[in-house]
Amino acid sequence: MSKTYSDLIFDTESTRNIDEANSRINIGWITSRFDVAEHLDRKVVEFSSKLGAEQYNFIVYPVGGIIRGFWDPRRFPEAPPNIDLPDLQLANHLWETYVCAGISEWIDCDSENPDFAKFSEQELIKELNYACYLGLRTVVLNLTRKSSPNLAKIIKKWLWTKNVLFTIWVSLPTNLPKNEDLWSVWADFRKDCANFNGVRLQAILNITADLQDEFLELKLVERWKAEPVGAICVHSDVFTTGKDGQAVLPQLYQKLLQNLWMFDSMRLLLKQINDGTKYRQNLRREYATSLRFTVRNVTWMRQKMAKETDGFLATSNLDYHDVLQAPLQPLSDNLDSGVYNTFEQDPVKYQRYRDAVQLAFMDIAKDKESVVVYLLGAGRGPIGTMILEAEKRYNSECRDKNNKLKIKFYVVEKNPNAIVTLRFMNENAWRKRAILVESDMRSLPSLAKENNYEQPDLIVSELLGSFGDNELSPECLDGVTDFLKPTTISIPQKYTSYAAPIMSLNMHQTIKSAIPSFWGKGLVGHGRNEPELEEDDENEGEYVQKYPQGMAISRLDQIYVVYLRQFCALAENKPVFTFEHPNFAKTSNDREIVLDFDIDRAADIMGFAGYFDMILYKNVMLSIEPKTFSNGMISWFPAVIPLRKLYRVAEGDRIKFVISRKSDADGVWYEWNLEIHRKNGEIFKSPLQNQNGESYYMRK
Amino acid sequence: MSKTYSDLIFDTESTRNIDEANSRINIGWITSRFDVAEHLDRKVVEFSSKLGAEQYNFIVYPVGGIIRGFWDPRRFPEAPPNIDLPDLQLANHLWETYVCAGISEWIDCDSENPDFAKFSEQELIKELNYACYLGLRTVVLNLTRKSSPNLAKIIKKWLWTKNVLFTIWVSLPTNLPKNEDLWSVWADFRKDCANFNGVRLQAILNITADLQDEFLELKLVERWKAEPVGAICVHSDVFTTGKDGQAVLPQLYQKLLQNLWMFDSMRLLLKQINDGTKYRQNLRREYATSLRFTVRNVTWMRQKMAKETDGFLATSNLDYHDVLQAPLQPLSDNLDSGVYNTFEQDPVKYQRYRDAVQLAFMDIAKDKESVVVYLLGAGRGPIGTMILEAEKRYNSECRDKNNKLKIKFYVVEKNPNAIVTLRFMNENAWRKRAILVESDMRSLPSLAKENNYEQPDLIVSELLGSFGDNELSPECLDGVTDFLKPTTISIPQKYTSYAAPIMSLNMHQTIKSAIPSFWGKGLVGHGRNEPELEEDDENEGEYVQKYPQGMAISRLDQIYVVYLRQFCALAENKPVFTFEHPNFAKTSNDREIVLDFDIDRAADIMGFAGYFDMILYKNVMLSIEPKTFSNGMISWFPAVIPLRKLYRVAEGDRIKFVISRKSDADGVWYEWNLEIHRKNGEIFKSPLQNQNGESYYMRK
Repeated sequence: MSKTYSDLIFDTESTRNIDEANSRINIGWITSRFDVAEHLDRKVVEFSSKLGAEQYNFIVYPVGGIIRGFWDPRRFPEAPPNIDLPDLQLANHLWETYVCAGISEWIDCDSENPDFAKFSEQELIKELNYACYLGLRTVVLNLTRKSSPNLAKIIKKWLWTKNVLFTIWVSLPTNLPKNEDLWSVWADFRKDCANFNGVRLQAILNITADLQDEFLELKLVERWKAEPVGAICVHSDVFTTGKDGQAVLPQLYQKLLQNLWMFDSMRLLLKQINDGTKYRQNLRREYATSLRFTVRNVTWMRQKMAKETDGFLATSNLDYHDVLQAPLQPLSDNLDSGVYNTFEQDPVKYQRYRDAVQLAFMDIAKDKESVVVYLLGAGRGPIGTMILEAEKRYNSECRDKNNKLKIKFYVVEKNPNAIVTLRFMNENAWRKRAILVESDMRSLPSLAKENNYEQPDLIVSELLGSFGDNELSPECLDGVTDFLKPTTISIPQKYTSYAAPIMSLNMHQTIKSAIPSFWGKGLVGHGRNEPELEEDDENEGEYVQKYPQGMAISRLDQIYVVYLRQFCALAENKPVFTFEHPNFAKTSNDREIVLDFDIDRAADIMGFAGYFDMILYKNVMLSIEPKTFSNGMISWFPAVIPLRKLYRVAEGDRIKFVISRKSDADGVWYEWNLEIHRKNGEIFKSPLQNQNGESYYMRK
Repeated sequence: MSKTYSDLIFDTESTRNIDEANSRINIGWITSRFDVAEHLDRKVVEFSSKLGAEQYNFIVYPVGGIIRGFWDPRRFPEAPPNIDLPDLQLANHLWETYVCAGISEWIDCDSENPDFAKFSEQELIKELNYACYLGLRTVVLNLTRKSSPNLAKIIKKWLWTKNVLFTIWVSLPTNLPKNEDLWSVWADFRKDCANFNGVRLQAILNITADLQDEFLELKLVERWKAEPVGAICVHSDVFTTGKDGQAVLPQLYQKLLQNLWMFDSMRLLLKQINDGTKYRQNLRREYATSLRFTVRNVTWMRQKMAKETDGFLATSNLDYHDVLQAPLQPLSDNLDSGVYNTFEQDPVKYQRYRDAVQLAFMDIAKDKESVVVYLLGAGRGPIGTMILEAEKRYNSECRDKNNKLKIKFYVVEKNPNAIVTLRFMNENAWRKRAILVESDMRSLPSLAKENNYEQPDLIVSELLGSFGDNELSPECLDGVTDFLKPTTISIPQKYTSYAAPIMSLNMHQTIKSAIPSFWGKGLVGHGRNEPELEEDDENEGEYVQKYPQGMAISRLDQIYVVYLRQFCALAENKPVFTFEHPNFAKTSNDREIVLDFDIDRAADIMGFAGYFDMILYKNVMLSIEPKTFSNGMISWFPAVIPLRKLYRVAEGDRIKFVISRKSDADGVWYEWNLEIHRKNGEIFKSPLQNQNGESYYMRK
């Protein structure tokens, strides 16, 4: 076999590691016409044991029995054999573990022959029922058409209305013209199933000798990362014979398979296209070996590379990928010690703050004995420690021993719990250098007057969210403007948010399905309304959070924080809103923008990923925007700004992301919607989301 | 120490087992006035380590610091010290593991002094906030009054509207008159909290030297099994000195503690009443040893005893206790292989069927060469096997070798999937003795005419649910009446359902909180209505099960199947409905009854437990009614017929359970409600539940 990156790793590793890596990869054998043998339906144990010995973990077996499964539909209106695959030959848990139900391939609910379509429907239901009866966990359904609306209608009703335990794997057609877009075939099918849960409705991609065009173009392949791919089925005629005479997957196919391999929980399937295994005893085993060899280290390599950007998170046990979080609102909700503690682990952010402060000292402290520094919103004080360290470094680098800068250091924090910690820090770590001010920074101008606080030369704050201004940094910092000198410097000086359209079925479904539990129905929502006490026949005086716009809409009209993995970015990021500090002119913090993006492939837009970067001071920056990302920084995951539905776009369409930042006396909110300008001139506008901050309202 | 049953077990067991049993019991030390020492608030590590060495697993510590915690409220309106318990002395996960927040004991939100009540509220919120800040998992709140409506109001809002991770332990008063019912104090408090989740709001029972009367009467103590008891707090002055000079819990207290010990996940607390530990170095350790000794084997013994009634279920890994199941509807939903398989494990039921059939043969087969037997609703055939075994036994016991009975054996089953298994059984286990009839038994009269089937001498069926007739056995068996001879015998001959009022906060909450996930919103409900396709702005053409009566009511108007554990039966069972077969007279299967129960203690009625027994033939019976339970039988768990709310009753009240069985062309349903006839003559009637089968409808 030719060398791939997995060789590079394992050349120096022990056999045990290879075995371990191999064992993580599950491969299934699709029972084919070439396996047909008399009485196989009563010898499932022997058949699956034999394949087990050949390194397959499970089989896909015709759920009605093999004779029925490969019945010739041209014999219709004659009926196929009855279902006859006795359950008692295998214990229930073994059926579940080793057998996937193959739906008869002749079933065609979208046949042009209406009688056969109707007959197919009836026989499909029988087979689905029998898969339930056997307690199987996976059902394999073959699509043979570009469009299968009738089949989708049946499957949709089945999935939504029956308490089914199995996952349906939809194997995509292999008989369409090479330029036909399979992603669109799949996306139409799942849409016709009302986009049912991707844990229960998944695609099987077929890797055939005659590859579809879309698998040759990276930007088209990337879309599958946004879809639930349950298995990748490799056809046996894809394999060639390697130097050592063994079946081997050609390099091109290896690359494709590795690229499509998202998780080790995915499955591989082997589909026999000819009867070669009859004549070459080891062929089945060679297929399995070659497939495992191809993907076994993909996840390992990806994790290794992630360490560079994710830092210690990549090695933690938390699975933070694709987990939905509500953005923090530190202004209205006080953070707890554990949250502060997590942020304080950031190995990059605080160093940059220290560097920025030191740089500022070089500009403003020249020839001065002292400068006045305010830390605004100190939390538990990590930036405070950095400010004192910057002072120390500045002194050792720029000052003589007997001419040291000694800053006047005010530390402002509104969270009464964090104040307990700050007091402890001041005593035990800061040698009482800080003057603690327990107050909202916006009260500082009046408080300073009362207490004769000095005006700042430098204010330092860290008040940004994943989408930049979404923790109300502009409003907070504007609140101290009256107390500043004309020369006061703010760290950060400037920040900008960014956005790009994304596709992600998983994210759309995760947001839609995140409904509160019964006990969570009274939790304060993210919109304008507070929970209400409800007293009626149905309850016992409980609190209930009401959603005038409906709970479903409310969920989709919010901004989330997510470490995105199962997604596909459809364009480069563009800047959204920029803020600069100090804002002496007191210009409004309301904003409005329309971003244009050109679409270069068929896709479903689920929303926009949001990022930001900030200039702390001069050239000292922090960024979570992928192109300029501050490697190792873990304080912010991307924001996701969802749309209410998945919107299909085509190559050549232009979309517009219309977003505004609005405010009133009590808070701030975003409103947004999508416009699609089709190639043919048609314009579609999606409904305006979060109008008036009903679903997502950031309290001042 | 005196011998208890734990000695009896462990006399013959190794020390290792004792250690293992001890390690399952978690004991916490309540920091008391006697622990107050300077700077303890900055030495939480040392303090908890010391107690760890003395066999305590965690401490309850004043969350605002020890000086504040034991502040003297008589100094009001002077303010207590600020909260000052620095988080940084302990890593976040250690706080979480080793420390429970003690709320300051002087806080009294229901004080007669309105200023102090208001002040208390403000300080309570501060302390709850600080417990959140520290990330603590448990907060201990002391009740000192019979009624604490203001405190409950604050806690209620907190629990329902904040995303709180801690559990609140409500320690019940120790200062009330001895005849005051503490259960009522607790039940009032949790009711004032709108009965919030028992995982988050739990009681602490105090075992004091001066025990409340209710702890001396078993029927009153039993009520605590229906409540979420988070911890039992033993006061130090309860201990006496044993023969060996060590602190020991007197027998009466041991018995009480063992009786209250529901799960090893409960916690024990030790509360120091005097400063004895100052003078006796080992006292703390002795308390812990004695407490562990008392409860460490309670669970083990209970499991051992359960094996007798629960059979193999007791040894399985499944936790089937208090798990809500929807009753099966085998008539409208075909069962799957795994469900059949579970039932077929029953070690008792099938033997009784065999005995009953054999007994029937002795009556009806005398001098006959053959009798005609129909198995109606065969499933996968376990009773079929028993019928053939009964024939064999009858022949070997009652017949000569050359004069054997050979039954004509018809096996009727409507489930097309089970027919596959029956065919397999007939070929491989029954030597083709059976004539398989794939049909609903109610079509048998017409089918028999077409096919010249013989009339039965004996029909055998097993169509009962947990509440007897609730799987529509009467309707199914009535469907074959026209095909019977006047002499035909039915096995079973007769069955009766039973019911008794129960209390169980857990069951009430479990039913209320069992709302479907987003993906389950279209699942077929249990009422009359089918799911509907919903197409509007908020969704993508999904199925939705609508509940005209509201989803909350719909859940509470259904019958469930539950292996009850956290409950308390409030009276003996009474018979509900009886059915006899064959029903040649075709009397109606509709029924109506009013059951009277006298109430002998204060309690919250959540609903009724349902059971049944059946006479298979003459003296051969099966029963799940506790007094006559067929030991080892696992086929049926009790039924639960819930009420919509918890209804408080008092000693001396009489309640009436009004239940009717109704039917129409398509199905059968129950309607029920509760009447409370108070001692003072007042009558309360709860709303009629499941009117017209809207929420729970058994399709014919």
